[in-house]
Amino acid sequence: MSKSHGGCGAETGLISVDEALALIINTPQTVGIQSLPLSEALHRYLAEPVYSQIDLPLFSQSAVDGYAICSETDILAGSAFELVGEIRAGEAVHHKLAIGQAMRIFTGAQIPEYTTTVARQEIVHVEANRIRLTADLPLHADIRDIGEEISIGQCLAEKGQQLSVGAIAALSMAGIHDVMVYKHPKIAVVITGDEVAESVEDLKSGKIFDANAPLINAWFQTKHIPIETFHVADSEQTVTQLFDHLKDQYDLILTTGGVSVGDYDFVRPVALKLGFEQIFWKVKQKPGKPMFFAQHQQVDRTCYLLGLPGNPAAVYVGMQIYVSTLIKALQGQQTLVEWISAVIQHDLKADSRERFLRMSAEFEQGILQVNSLSKQQSHMLSNLMQANCLVRIPAHQNIQTGDVLQGCWIFD
Amino acid sequence: MSKSHGGCGAETGLISVDEALALIINTPQTVGIQSLPLSEALHRYLAEPVYSQIDLPLFSQSAVDGYAICSETDILAGSAFELVGEIRAGEAVHHKLAIGQAMRIFTGAQIPEYTTTVARQEIVHVEANRIRLTADLPLHADIRDIGEEISIGQCLAEKGQQLSVGAIAALSMAGIHDVMVYKHPKIAVVITGDEVAESVEDLKSGKIFDANAPLINAWFQTKHIPIETFHVADSEQTVTQLFDHLKDQYDLILTTGGVSVGDYDFVRPVALKLGFEQIFWKVKQKPGKPMFFAQHQQVDRTCYLLGLPGNPAAVYVGMQIYVSTLIKALQGQQTLVEWISAVIQHDLKADSRERFLRMSAEFEQGILQVNSLSKQQSHMLSNLMQANCLVRIPAHQNIQTGDVLQGCWIFD
Repeated sequence: MSKSHGGCGAETGLISVDEALALIINTPQTVGIQSLPLSEALHRYLAEPVYSQIDLPLFSQSAVDGYAICSETDILAGSAFELVGEIRAGEAVHHKLAIGQAMRIFTGAQIPEYTTTVARQEIVHVEANRIRLTADLPLHADIRDIGEEISIGQCLAEKGQQLSVGAIAALSMAGIHDVMVYKHPKIAVVITGDEVAESVEDLKSGKIFDANAPLINAWFQTKHIPIETFHVADSEQTVTQLFDHLKDQYDLILTTGGVSVGDYDFVRPVALKLGFEQIFWKVKQKPGKPMFFAQHQQVDRTCYLLGLPGNPAAVYVGMQIYVSTLIKALQGQQTLVEWISAVIQHDLKADSRERFLRMSAEFEQGILQVNSLSKQQSHMLSNLMQANCLVRIPAHQNIQTGDVLQGCWIFD
Repeated sequence: MSKSHGGCGAETGLISVDEALALIINTPQTVGIQSLPLSEALHRYLAEPVYSQIDLPLFSQSAVDGYAICSETDILAGSAFELVGEIRAGEAVHHKLAIGQAMRIFTGAQIPEYTTTVARQEIVHVEANRIRLTADLPLHADIRDIGEEISIGQCLAEKGQQLSVGAIAALSMAGIHDVMVYKHPKIAVVITGDEVAESVEDLKSGKIFDANAPLINAWFQTKHIPIETFHVADSEQTVTQLFDHLKDQYDLILTTGGVSVGDYDFVRPVALKLGFEQIFWKVKQKPGKPMFFAQHQQVDRTCYLLGLPGNPAAVYVGMQIYVSTLIKALQGQQTLVEWISAVIQHDLKADSRERFLRMSAEFEQGILQVNSLSKQQSHMLSNLMQANCLVRIPAHQNIQTGDVLQGCWIFD
């Protein structure tokens, strides 16, 4: 009997990181769109532009606590006005001022008709039912004009914009209650492998604790995207049964392990047998070479499968670089990871594959400086206690102190 | 009748931003600690250091798919070994190898006793029940040694460390199931003001849409901290009733509006009447000058009250700078906002108060460059559609293109 095995280093047919990312970005169909209350739309991507239905400010209003005044001209210090009432913020205004009259008014309150200027309370002396100014005051002081910030019909947000906390506040202020957004894909996470310990006793028999399910679960928590997790043993029959069920129920099957060329690596052969079409397999990178991407096209929908290797470092890179990109693409955003440029503080030897190294980054005088952490091997994760970025190291290049590299800042 | 009003610009007795932050950091007692499953501990702060209960790797294992070999010396290409079995990852090992023997093995699987080296499958030719090496192989190749990454008793994470996605993965891998963390404070958010529109009809009568409740709600969503929100009219009686109830039920009352010196600003007078002790009132900053911080000490607990002004820009700055700091302090983390240094791309005129400006930042060749956005007035928020940072501008300083400033990167 004679077997041939896939090679490790000099293998041909591998695609580059940029080619893999381009396929991840350009392959997916979006899952669809839906209307959501703004309060439930944090981190969603807009499926339509948002236009203002109102002017902002909605009405001309006082910018200060003070007195709305009607005067034909600029006012000199010492001038007095008859005090004819008071307007609180949020109160409807039915008064009209006549020349020589003033009304007490508060910040944000609608100014009465025929108001020509507003005197802030610091320059006003109140005498029974009159007020007297203690400083000169020009026309149109401290008035916020209707539509000064936003006018009706103005575009507030573009299609594709992600709704940050600030965006939600800004849209709320313009009276937007509901937004059309891209749906979240329905995601099944499949952890393969017989080696996962369920208890401390299991450890005695060659099993290990699983970092991948907790990692993936926490990562999706930061994205506010729900997932369902399945564990499956390394058996062709159980993997087949599970994938066959999942492909009809989920938009994305995300797997860990079982994508290499080992005798128990069933993810790819089973997927292909079930009718998944391979988009790519194996990427010229470290960690995470045997990554597998496929799609199962059905009449009215497609199920995607992204198979990450089982090594936890490969899973970490897979989530931060590839899954983040894929999740965006499934929501209509064909955009790359936001690579951030940083200056490396030490030399690094060349490697035949492009690498993603876990590093620690800090700002110094406006410059982002990055340093490699020890224990970068793909079965090791303990340096994630210190890492705050993943830095791309191009293949075949000796890196020198001071070189500018592209990194992925980790926001959690 | 004669009234005196608080001044606006040259007021005395205001504290600086740094003084306010120091009081926010140093005043609070922590809310307590609790044990949580690691899977529910994302973004929590550790209340105790975490030590490893196991070695990692747990056992000596193969780093590759290949063959575990027993040989007294380095091996030359062409050497043959008797193939005596197979070990899968996660399988208990009962075999012992004798000199001249080999076993099929997979990545992460425990090596059998007396293994001296591992041959990756790429350099192995299989012939029935023998294998022959196609390349030289030294002793101890591709073996991951027990405890190579982490040894029993090693400190995995320090007290106070925040649990990121990576940290959760790293601790999971070391078999940590539960962690002692600081409790989240129980938070009541109180939106004051008669001017908040409940419907589009309300707008006709001088009311406005509320940005503050959606802003605060979304901000706490990003932090995974639950809140309860209350709306209250500008009436002394209703504010009193509400605060009196909340002070016994919550660790933190966070209010918007009603903290200035207007005739309807009841937050501070009501809090003082109910026995809250003022820690500070008014900060030399823009926006957000009339910020109010107080505490209500009870036998076995303290309720804190942070009163933000009602202007949405002040609320935004309040959340990103002060509430983030306070929430950390209540969880035992007496640490400042992580100021990031950035290079400004234009001049800015001096102002008598320290300012927080909404800016857009981007990386260029490792340098973080920031640009002011228009519409910085405190009642305006629309530039939050573009802003990704808040930059601190010191008081009384003319800022010039190229100056390095401290900013707060906005991670949502």
